[in-house]
Amino acid sequence: MIPRYSRPEMAAIWSPETRFRIWFEIEAHATDALADLGVVPKAAAAAIWEKAGGASFDVERIDEIERTTKHDVIAFLTHVAEIVGPEARFLHQGMTSSDVLDTCLSVQLARAADILIADIDRLLAALKTRAMEHRHTITIGRSHGIHAEPTTFGVKLAQAYAEFDRNRARLVAARAEIATCAISGAIGTFANIDPRVEAHVADKLGLTVEPVSTQVIPRDRHAMFFATLGVIASSIERLATEIRHLQRTEVLEAEEYFSPGQKGSSAMPHKRNPVLTENLTGLARLVRGMVTPALENVALWHERDISHSSVERMIGPDATVTLDFALTRLAGVIEKLLVYPENMQRNLDLLGGLHNSQRVLLALTQAGMSREEAYAAVQRNAMQVWQMRGNRTGQFACLLKADAEIAEKLNPQAIDAMFDDAYHLKAVDTIFARVFGA
Amino acid sequence: MIPRYSRPEMAAIWSPETRFRIWFEIEAHATDALADLGVVPKAAAAAIWEKAGGASFDVERIDEIERTTKHDVIAFLTHVAEIVGPEARFLHQGMTSSDVLDTCLSVQLARAADILIADIDRLLAALKTRAMEHRHTITIGRSHGIHAEPTTFGVKLAQAYAEFDRNRARLVAARAEIATCAISGAIGTFANIDPRVEAHVADKLGLTVEPVSTQVIPRDRHAMFFATLGVIASSIERLATEIRHLQRTEVLEAEEYFSPGQKGSSAMPHKRNPVLTENLTGLARLVRGMVTPALENVALWHERDISHSSVERMIGPDATVTLDFALTRLAGVIEKLLVYPENMQRNLDLLGGLHNSQRVLLALTQAGMSREEAYAAVQRNAMQVWQMRGNRTGQFACLLKADAEIAEKLNPQAIDAMFDDAYHLKAVDTIFARVFGA
Amino acid sequence: MIPRYSRPEMAAIWSPETRFRIWFEIEAHATDALADLGVVPKAAAAAIWEKAGGASFDVERIDEIERTTKHDVIAFLTHVAEIVGPEARFLHQGMTSSDVLDTCLSVQLARAADILIADIDRLLAALKTRAMEHRHTITIGRSHGIHAEPTTFGVKLAQAYAEFDRNRARLVAARAEIATCAISGAIGTFANIDPRVEAHVADKLGLTVEPVSTQVIPRDRHAMFFATLGVIASSIERLATEIRHLQRTEVLEAEEYFSPGQKGSSAMPHKRNPVLTENLTGLARLVRGMVTPALENVALWHERDISHSSVERMIGPDATVTLDFALTRLAGVIEKLLVYPENMQRNLDLLGGLHNSQRVLLALTQAGMSREEAYAAVQRNAMQVWQMRGNRTGQFACLLKADAEIAEKLNPQAIDAMFDDAYHLKAVDTIFARVFGA
Amino acid sequence: MIPRYSRPEMAAIWSPETRFRIWFEIEAHATDALADLGVVPKAAAAAIWEKAGGASFDVERIDEIERTTKHDVIAFLTHVAEIVGPEARFLHQGMTSSDVLDTCLSVQLARAADILIADIDRLLAALKTRAMEHRHTITIGRSHGIHAEPTTFGVKLAQAYAEFDRNRARLVAARAEIATCAISGAIGTFANIDPRVEAHVADKLGLTVEPVSTQVIPRDRHAMFFATLGVIASSIERLATEIRHLQRTEVLEAEEYFSPGQKGSSAMPHKRNPVLTENLTGLARLVRGMVTPALENVALWHERDISHSSVERMIGPDATVTLDFALTRLAGVIEKLLVYPENMQRNLDLLGGLHNSQRVLLALTQAGMSREEAYAAVQRNAMQVWQMRGNRTGQFACLLKADAEIAEKLNPQAIDAMFDDAYHLKAVDTIFARVFGA
Repeated sequence: MIPRYSRPEMAAIWSPETRFRIWFEIEAHATDALADLGVVPKAAAAAIWEKAGGASFDVERIDEIERTTKHDVIAFLTHVAEIVGPEARFLHQGMTSSDVLDTCLSVQLARAADILIADIDRLLAALKTRAMEHRHTITIGRSHGIHAEPTTFGVKLAQAYAEFDRNRARLVAARAEIATCAISGAIGTFANIDPRVEAHVADKLGLTVEPVSTQVIPRDRHAMFFATLGVIASSIERLATEIRHLQRTEVLEAEEYFSPGQKGSSAMPHKRNPVLTENLTGLARLVRGMVTPALENVALWHERDISHSSVERMIGPDATVTLDFALTRLAGVIEKLLVYPENMQRNLDLLGGLHNSQRVLLALTQAGMSREEAYAAVQRNAMQVWQMRGNRTGQFACLLKADAEIAEKLNPQAIDAMFDDAYHLKAVDTIFARVFGA
Repeated sequence: MIPRYSRPEMAAIWSPETRFRIWFEIEAHATDALADLGVVPKAAAAAIWEKAGGASFDVERIDEIERTTKHDVIAFLTHVAEIVGPEARFLHQGMTSSDVLDTCLSVQLARAADILIADIDRLLAALKTRAMEHRHTITIGRSHGIHAEPTTFGVKLAQAYAEFDRNRARLVAARAEIATCAISGAIGTFANIDPRVEAHVADKLGLTVEPVSTQVIPRDRHAMFFATLGVIASSIERLATEIRHLQRTEVLEAEEYFSPGQKGSSAMPHKRNPVLTENLTGLARLVRGMVTPALENVALWHERDISHSSVERMIGPDATVTLDFALTRLAGVIEKLLVYPENMQRNLDLLGGLHNSQRVLLALTQAGMSREEAYAAVQRNAMQVWQMRGNRTGQFACLLKADAEIAEKLNPQAIDAMFDDAYHLKAVDTIFARVFGA
Repeated sequence: MIPRYSRPEMAAIWSPETRFRIWFEIEAHATDALADLGVVPKAAAAAIWEKAGGASFDVERIDEIERTTKHDVIAFLTHVAEIVGPEARFLHQGMTSSDVLDTCLSVQLARAADILIADIDRLLAALKTRAMEHRHTITIGRSHGIHAEPTTFGVKLAQAYAEFDRNRARLVAARAEIATCAISGAIGTFANIDPRVEAHVADKLGLTVEPVSTQVIPRDRHAMFFATLGVIASSIERLATEIRHLQRTEVLEAEEYFSPGQKGSSAMPHKRNPVLTENLTGLARLVRGMVTPALENVALWHERDISHSSVERMIGPDATVTLDFALTRLAGVIEKLLVYPENMQRNLDLLGGLHNSQRVLLALTQAGMSREEAYAAVQRNAMQVWQMRGNRTGQFACLLKADAEIAEKLNPQAIDAMFDDAYHLKAVDTIFARVFGA
Repeated sequence: MIPRYSRPEMAAIWSPETRFRIWFEIEAHATDALADLGVVPKAAAAAIWEKAGGASFDVERIDEIERTTKHDVIAFLTHVAEIVGPEARFLHQGMTSSDVLDTCLSVQLARAADILIADIDRLLAALKTRAMEHRHTITIGRSHGIHAEPTTFGVKLAQAYAEFDRNRARLVAARAEIATCAISGAIGTFANIDPRVEAHVADKLGLTVEPVSTQVIPRDRHAMFFATLGVIASSIERLATEIRHLQRTEVLEAEEYFSPGQKGSSAMPHKRNPVLTENLTGLARLVRGMVTPALENVALWHERDISHSSVERMIGPDATVTLDFALTRLAGVIEKLLVYPENMQRNLDLLGGLHNSQRVLLALTQAGMSREEAYAAVQRNAMQVWQMRGNRTGQFACLLKADAEIAEKLNPQAIDAMFDDAYHLKAVDTIFARVFGA
């Protein structure tokens, strides 16, 4: 987590202050439940909230204590005792550190997921707005980077919308995976803590109860969570890559917003570079790189070992903060994206109508030519257009009409009729209805 | 996919024969729909099924054709034409190769997922049976590989059951991700093919319609699928690692079945090694290694490039075949696992009762000692037991009684009462009810 | 390893026949050494070579035996005994299976490395030839996909040459890492086998002696080997990506060879796609995906466990076969690459001379303007050129001359002099000398 | 990079202060060279050193400027101009930001590598000391976690020494990979900067000249660097895993140092856990997770894109800081490791002499039994010992003597002679000589 790529709201989830606040709430709610069960005095439970419920814990003091105890939760409890006084001894009864740490991580990841879902919602809104705006903006579709057949810029964005809509659903599922609470004591046996304590804390924190914890919440849940972030990051990379391609000098169909006073290069004053989407490409690699460590965290030894901890201390903040930053940046890019329909049209015309080659092929087969012959006939004319230099406008139709074998099957009018680009766009509304509803 | 780690049913999904059979069905169903729409003659559509519906396609012949066309779908269609005759020219009208290839991959992955779900069901059944059998088999719980407090072997297996039950749900979701059909033509615009063809083929093949394809089905779906397989593989590694630990010479609480005549080592006749679970550990690494390539496949260029294809040709079969093999092997290991309750008891007794240290700690705090003092008092006696050699049975209780500070708070009877292991198991039924239902 | 992406010579290294042949040689050489040491009869050692030295082992028979022994090396030795007769009992004296398996893997990986080095040599030769050919072929250099300043196509290839030259050196180092021999018996203690046996076998097989094996050769060696393959794969991806970019319809500065009769798309006869380099991009992902499993193989338990084995059975062949195929394919692409200097020139001219913006900036600062002012002056004119449509030839110079602030510092002749592209190429020979020698 | 897992010396390399200091040196040395070449006034070059050579740059001020320029190097140069005055305009002449950024990264990575090499040296020293100390401390060797044959604890450490010695050599090679300097201007053509400037800066900073840069230093170098760190991390995981295994309650052959006052668990006062080595296991996963992003950074578009930048901003510090911390922690663990030779002996005796099964097998074959028969004879007695409970001391020899088939070949004295453990250790000195020299 580096400041350059982090936003305050998400970063705050991972601050020591937030962590200690959540720890306190877990401990204090658990003590309430213990008081209800008659294990600890109700007055003590009340006093804890009263004296420390509004307190902000002293991170430096806790760090100082930890330097002697070498145990973070014990250091925290010691500090709480400094604030609360003797009633503090009723905290943490029958619990283990993992009860606090793992449930806290659940709260943090769930909050992080909520922000990420909101981020996706902003991105979806941007994609929808721009898709509607460019619903009928014709542009060449490219397979293999090579002109294929026309589509619209709106359809491109609709595809991205559908993809991020899936990502939203995945994220909601991933949030449910990790939003569990475990207050089950050493080895998860509830030997020294009543399961009703867990139920109470879960309820208060908006979590579900972990059915069977073994001192720790099982890490397949977290693995699934981070794997899902990796998928979302990859979708970010896809859309970022699309924009980078569209901004290439020779293409220039769209461009990241370039603010007045911005400098593209310290050396070359003429530059306007897609630096935001290139940055997003790199951020995607980072988030993706955190998936495998999360997967490797699953196979803890026996009821638990602590190898997962250092991994999560890093990837917990890093993956969520980076993805939050990336989603927000991507939403901004889409919202302000400069779109150049006239360049799209110019590029579309670049190959002199070749993008209708399939139509001609189909017409020839329907006119009785074998697919093989038709393919060869269309291809030989198409390749001739490829070779041409200069203005190729209309050249493909021209050559087709002059081809004896083709002329036998299709008259000039029929050929001309095939060069109406509206033909390619007739299903755009169907696609939009599928993606955005009627 | 190597024979040693593959099972015939799963491997068959990925054979050329199966692939060509699915291709044929996609093409023939599409032609039916085209016939219904009046695009091609109904008689032609019928003739295709009649002549090739029961045919087995000649893989070698198709390979031979591909060597000249350098295009697999064209080679296939050429071969179908050899079987069907002139009506074959009505196949593939308005479609692209990707319509066939991607929809075929969906069918293959969905079938593979069905087998994997069945594999998990077998594993779940085995885990449940053995968990019930050992519901009350007491065993030491270990955190950090160090004795902590007792649990039961059944609870260990219940944890694995809950984990694989989650994996089952994930797999069902992952299956839905990839079970989509795209018959949308070049660039996915439906310019040359009616969307109703797609709906018909989807229906016939048990798939859902891809809302917006861009000649290809978007690869975030496949990424999510393979990421899910990576999570499942990691759970396999966890359970395999548990068994490997339990079989260690010094522990020997459970052991892979060792058949008569089996040889553990070519050199050392005394060996009985957990080779199956070690193998599973390796297989988990393999499946996990396929997650990142699948994630990297998402960012295809523009409407599509073909970089995903070579990746999927390898990881499609490899990930599903390997995971199928691994799940089945793991189910077999669990079904036949040799469990040694007497060794579990012997190990439990190894530390002379130290596993009750928390109980003593809690009792002392409830008797009025501060948590800090109580901790110190219990720890100093515990460490003394650690140092002891030879038979430590009962030593911890003995030392506690002799400790003046402790004796002040707890009388010998109270201390003895804390060394009843049933105390630790009182929530076992609660946990079982959570995992397996009442 | 799938046939589509494998070449026979590399695939043969991983065939059962080759493996058994290497196993035999290890065993027979070891027996020779044992005979020299007087441990086994010299006549027996001689008889083994005589009877089985030229034999081809029956893979099916060995598989059949393994189905009962469940141990591959024992199955092999049993089969050798069927060929050799009673003298076979002197084979494998004091050895473990790992001695055979690990040393065999060393031989296989070393042979594979030799092929890969030869592949790189072919690629280097192709890159050098084409670099020399296009040493002075001017082309626009692009940063961020945006036109920057000119370079030559030869320099692009020289960069690739230098990169693969580094990869060659890395591969030579990686080969040395894994070319070790361990014949050290159970746990690697030489308790039952004299270290001189190991020295003899190593010598005969062209390997070095593993200083300390623990029954297995330590897997950090293999990790380094596969990590190196991952780096090489990434370089392949880089060069493949470059070509994919250059072949884009709007750019078309270079193009994969397209053979007569080839079909770019089953639907669109006009297509010529960079399918080979897209394929290489996918193959790079595959090889890269094998790095992490190899890294995870390092941490075997104690003196060894067998979790590495399944991983290596797959990635050993897959990584080397795939990389061999990819390097060869890439060499072929470079050798036959169609290069279009006239398109390079046309693209270079696209921005009306903007690629000289830095030169103007520097001239203005040297004429006394502050860097900030100069930057602003050049940028405002450059941005105006960006906005223009139609023919922009010479427009940048034109605008600069008309800019009052600039005109104060630079006269028209000075400005014109800055639009000589030879200026950018003056260090090409220096760069070539650095890369290819004088 | 989180404080908990970082050491000040390494962290300092990555501070903004250090970065700006290195940037300044690159710029100032380059200006010196430009002055020597007559491009800028010598007085200006001198003034720059004089006025800013000892300055500490104001990080906050630079950040403030960057918020308007949105360009870090321009912000830095602006700040330098605030300190230096008008002569500052002679800085950065003909250079690009990448010249500064990439060369700075080289300096940082080279310095980081130097610390890591020193870390490995400390670890090697610790391993050697402890290996010498326990050269003859007998302990059971384990394959598959199962007792195999004896070795010494010193040999275990010698293996680790040899592995980290290889890692040291790899790191030296990796350092050379990234210690290059590029001052080649836009697109790396030297159009606006003389190659002698690069040579001068390289010389001053202890770097070599990058033969062909394309505005950026090629990222295959960095990929190789981070891949090497990933291999080292995996070796750390191996040694950490060994210690975790040895500290298991049932094994307890070695143990991490446990300081007075340390608490193993907040709940269970009896715990002493291998938390440092578990932590190292997690840290290894983190470093390993950074390898793939580094590999993905290689395929930049054309002469450069900036997607690598965000990746390196994170993994540059994170990988080196984490690995530094891990190596140092591991060295500390080894230095203070508690070793329990008596427990090693007790464990060795656990199986009643079974670890000599191979010796008996070999003796029987040498006495004329077939390998198959001998294996069966030894195995049946070995399996009987496995089944036994209670004290198994001497049981294996006892059973062997009582086995009629064996007794025919080996008399009781011969059998007894095979249970001398010194037999297994006779090559220890040979191994030590190989690893540590004579």
